[in-house]
Amino acid sequence: MADNGSPVAGNGLLDRRFFLKAGVASGATLLSAQAVAADRPVWMRGPGGPMSESGAPSEHEAHLQRTAIGSQPGTTGAGASRTPLELLDGIITPSRLHFERHHSGIPAIDPDEHRLVIHGLVDRPLSFSLDALSRYQTVSRIQFLECSGNSGASLAPEPVQRSCSQIHGLVSASEWGGVPLSVLLQETGIKPQGKWIVAAGADAATMSRSVPMEKVLDDAIVALYQNGERLRPANGYPMRLFRPGWAGNMLVKWPRPIKVIDQPAMTKDETSKYSDLQDDGISRLFTFPMGVKSVITSPSHGLQMGEPGIYQISGIAWTGAGKIRRVEVSADGGQSWAEAALDEHVMSKCLTRFRSAWRWDGATAVILSRATDAAGNVQPTREAVLDGRSNVAFYHYNGIQAWQVGANGEVSNVYA
Amino acid sequence: MADNGSPVAGNGLLDRRFFLKAGVASGATLLSAQAVAADRPVWMRGPGGPMSESGAPSEHEAHLQRTAIGSQPGTTGAGASRTPLELLDGIITPSRLHFERHHSGIPAIDPDEHRLVIHGLVDRPLSFSLDALSRYQTVSRIQFLECSGNSGASLAPEPVQRSCSQIHGLVSASEWGGVPLSVLLQETGIKPQGKWIVAAGADAATMSRSVPMEKVLDDAIVALYQNGERLRPANGYPMRLFRPGWAGNMLVKWPRPIKVIDQPAMTKDETSKYSDLQDDGISRLFTFPMGVKSVITSPSHGLQMGEPGIYQISGIAWTGAGKIRRVEVSADGGQSWAEAALDEHVMSKCLTRFRSAWRWDGATAVILSRATDAAGNVQPTREAVLDGRSNVAFYHYNGIQAWQVGANGEVSNVYA
Repeated sequence: MADNGSPVAGNGLLDRRFFLKAGVASGATLLSAQAVAADRPVWMRGPGGPMSESGAPSEHEAHLQRTAIGSQPGTTGAGASRTPLELLDGIITPSRLHFERHHSGIPAIDPDEHRLVIHGLVDRPLSFSLDALSRYQTVSRIQFLECSGNSGASLAPEPVQRSCSQIHGLVSASEWGGVPLSVLLQETGIKPQGKWIVAAGADAATMSRSVPMEKVLDDAIVALYQNGERLRPANGYPMRLFRPGWAGNMLVKWPRPIKVIDQPAMTKDETSKYSDLQDDGISRLFTFPMGVKSVITSPSHGLQMGEPGIYQISGIAWTGAGKIRRVEVSADGGQSWAEAALDEHVMSKCLTRFRSAWRWDGATAVILSRATDAAGNVQPTREAVLDGRSNVAFYHYNGIQAWQVGANGEVSNVYA
Repeated sequence: MADNGSPVAGNGLLDRRFFLKAGVASGATLLSAQAVAADRPVWMRGPGGPMSESGAPSEHEAHLQRTAIGSQPGTTGAGASRTPLELLDGIITPSRLHFERHHSGIPAIDPDEHRLVIHGLVDRPLSFSLDALSRYQTVSRIQFLECSGNSGASLAPEPVQRSCSQIHGLVSASEWGGVPLSVLLQETGIKPQGKWIVAAGADAATMSRSVPMEKVLDDAIVALYQNGERLRPANGYPMRLFRPGWAGNMLVKWPRPIKVIDQPAMTKDETSKYSDLQDDGISRLFTFPMGVKSVITSPSHGLQMGEPGIYQISGIAWTGAGKIRRVEVSADGGQSWAEAALDEHVMSKCLTRFRSAWRWDGATAVILSRATDAAGNVQPTREAVLDGRSNVAFYHYNGIQAWQVGANGEVSNVYA
C-alpha cells in the first residue's frame, strides 16, 4: 500500500484511506488555553427560537434551491427544475429539491377521486382507489431517478460553462415505497398474450410509455411514498409508476390507466421523443436501463477553490444495471486513475457517493471520474458516446465529465 | 411452507410472503370496458401548476405535521416535537418532520462565526471553522436518532390513549454525513491519559455529555449534512456530534468545545438527568447503546380500521447494537408469533421497516411486535423492563408495545 502522503495517481491524488489515517492540517487554527475560554457568542446568551410543526432549513442556506426553467416556447407547463447537486452531499435528495420534468404542469389531483385502472389483456379489469391500494403490503427501497435528457448539454460542440446542477441535475435519489405492480397484476390476471403494458398519466399531457412485462413483474411498484411521506405533487401525488433504473419518463407520474398489451403501443411520447437517431439513419427506439455514469459534484463549475492544499473530490455514481462496483478518479486529465472511496451503503439502482483525497498544488488541473458497475459496464468517454450517433440524438448521455481547475481556483467545464 | 392463505400464527397472521404470491381482492372494483373510457377528470382538461425552486407537500397532506409541545413550566425553550410515525412509511424521516428535543430553544447561529474547538488532553488544541471542516473527507450513513426519554409514556400505571407518535415519536432516521471525529483527533493528538471526551452545545443550555474514547474513535462524526442537505437548525446547524446508536442527548447539537478528559466530567446533564434509579436505590448512571426495540405504526391508536379483511401490519424496529435480525408479530396478544417481512435495506443502527399480512376477522384483537437484533438481544416485555426499576426511573424504555383493535375498528393502547 502506498504511503499515506504519497500520490497513488498523477497530480496529487492520494490513497483513498488517506483521510482516515493521517493528519491533514487543512485550515484548523492552533489555540491557546485562553482562547478556549473566550466569550460566549450572542446566541448562547438567551433562549433560542421555538419549535414548530414543520421544520425549515437555516436562513443561511436560502440559496439551496432548484434551478427551475419554465415553459418552452409554444408549450404550456413544459419545463424542468434541477437538483443542486454541487451543494448536496450523501445520496438522499431532500424531496423539496428532487428534480422535476413536466410536459403540462403539475395536475391538482384529488386523491379521493383518483383511480388506477388495470385493463386490456387481463382476466378481470380492476379499478383501485388509494384506500384499496393502501391495504396491500408495500415495499420500500432507496433508488435513483434520472431523466433521459439529463446531461444533454454535454452534446454541445463546445463545453457550456454551466454548473453541475445545470448540466447533470436531472438525477435524484429517494426512498420509494409502494405496492409491487406484480401483486396488482395477480389480482387482475394476465392473459397469455399480455407481454407489455402501457401506462398513461393523469396530467393534460397524458404521458404514455410502454414497458415489457418482464420488467413490470421484476421490480416495478406503484409508489405511494417518497422519503417516508406521501409523494410530492410534482413527483406523482398520489401515486407514481416507479420502475427502478429506467428513464424518468417511463416512471409515469399520476398513472390512471395501465393497459396490458401484446406489443409496444408506439404512443406519441415514444415515437416523437426518447429515441436516439444513429449515423446510419436508424433510431434506437427503446433504451431501457440507464447507462453507468458518474459525475464529480465538488469541485465543479461555480464552486471556488481556496489556497492550494488538501481537498476532497466528491461525486455521485449510478447505473440502471444494479450496483456500482468501482469509481476511479483522475487529476491529470485521464492519464492516471486512483480508486475512490465509496460510502458504506452501496445499493442497487441507487446513487453511490464517492470521495478521493487530492493534494492540489495550485496549478491548472483536469479532474474526471469513471464508474464501473457490478455487471462490468464501464462509463464511456464523451467521444465513445458520440461515436455512431447522429448529431441530433439527444437522450441517454452518460459520458465522462471533466472539470478544469484553474490556477485562480475557478472551475470550468472542459472536454477531455 | 404454509399455504399462502393459511395463518402461520394465531388470529389470522399470514405468511410474510403472502402479498407477493396470492391475490388479495381487498377493495378493488371490477370494471366494465366502458368504465375504462370514462370522462377525464377536471385536472386533465388543462395545464397543471408551475414548477418551483423548492417543492412542497400536497395540500391534501397538510395534516402531516409534528406534534410540538412547547415549554414546560419554569423553563424557556424546553420541549419536544414528535415525528408522526403512524402517517409515514419506509425508514427515512423527512427533515421537516424529524423530532426535536430542546432545553433552551434553537440558537440562531451564524455559521461563519461558529467554531468547533478540541482541547484538554491533546497535543495541540485546535479550532475548526466550518470552512476548515469542509476540506476533510466526509462519510455518510443512514442511521436512527432516538431520545432517551422516548416511549416514557409507557411507564404510566394505566395505558395512555395517545397516538403512536405521541408515545414513540422521539425517534427518526436520516442520512447523516460529516467528518469522522477520529480524524480531527489525529490532528490534535490525544495524550495517553485521554480516555473520554466531554462535548458542550452552543445553545444557552450548553447541553454537555461525556462519552468514552472507544466510541468516539469507532464511529462518531461531526455531522454537517442531514438527508443530503446542510443540517436543519433544530438538529444542530451548522454541525452536530453524531454518535450512532446512542441516546439523542449524547449526540450534542451545535457542539462548540470538545474536551479530551481522563474520566467522565459528571456534568449537570448527566447527573440531574438520563440516569435510571433502580429499586435497590442505586442509579444506572450511563446507558450507552439504545436497546433493541420495535413498534407497530399501523394500525395504531388514532387510525381507524375499515371492514374486516386483509390488512398490512407495519412498523419500525431498531437497535443501538447494530442490525435488526428479525421482527415477530403477534395478533393474539402474544400467544403465537409470526416472522414479519423486512424491507430490502437492513442497515446498522438504522430503522428497519417490517410488514406482516393479517386477515382481521372483525373481532377484538391485540397486536404486538418483538424485535431481535444481530447481537441476539430480544426486545423485552413491559414487565421485564420495569422489573427492578424504581417507579421514578423514566429513560430508556424499550418494552413491547401492544395495540388493541376493537370490533368497531378503533385502536387503543393496552398493556399485554
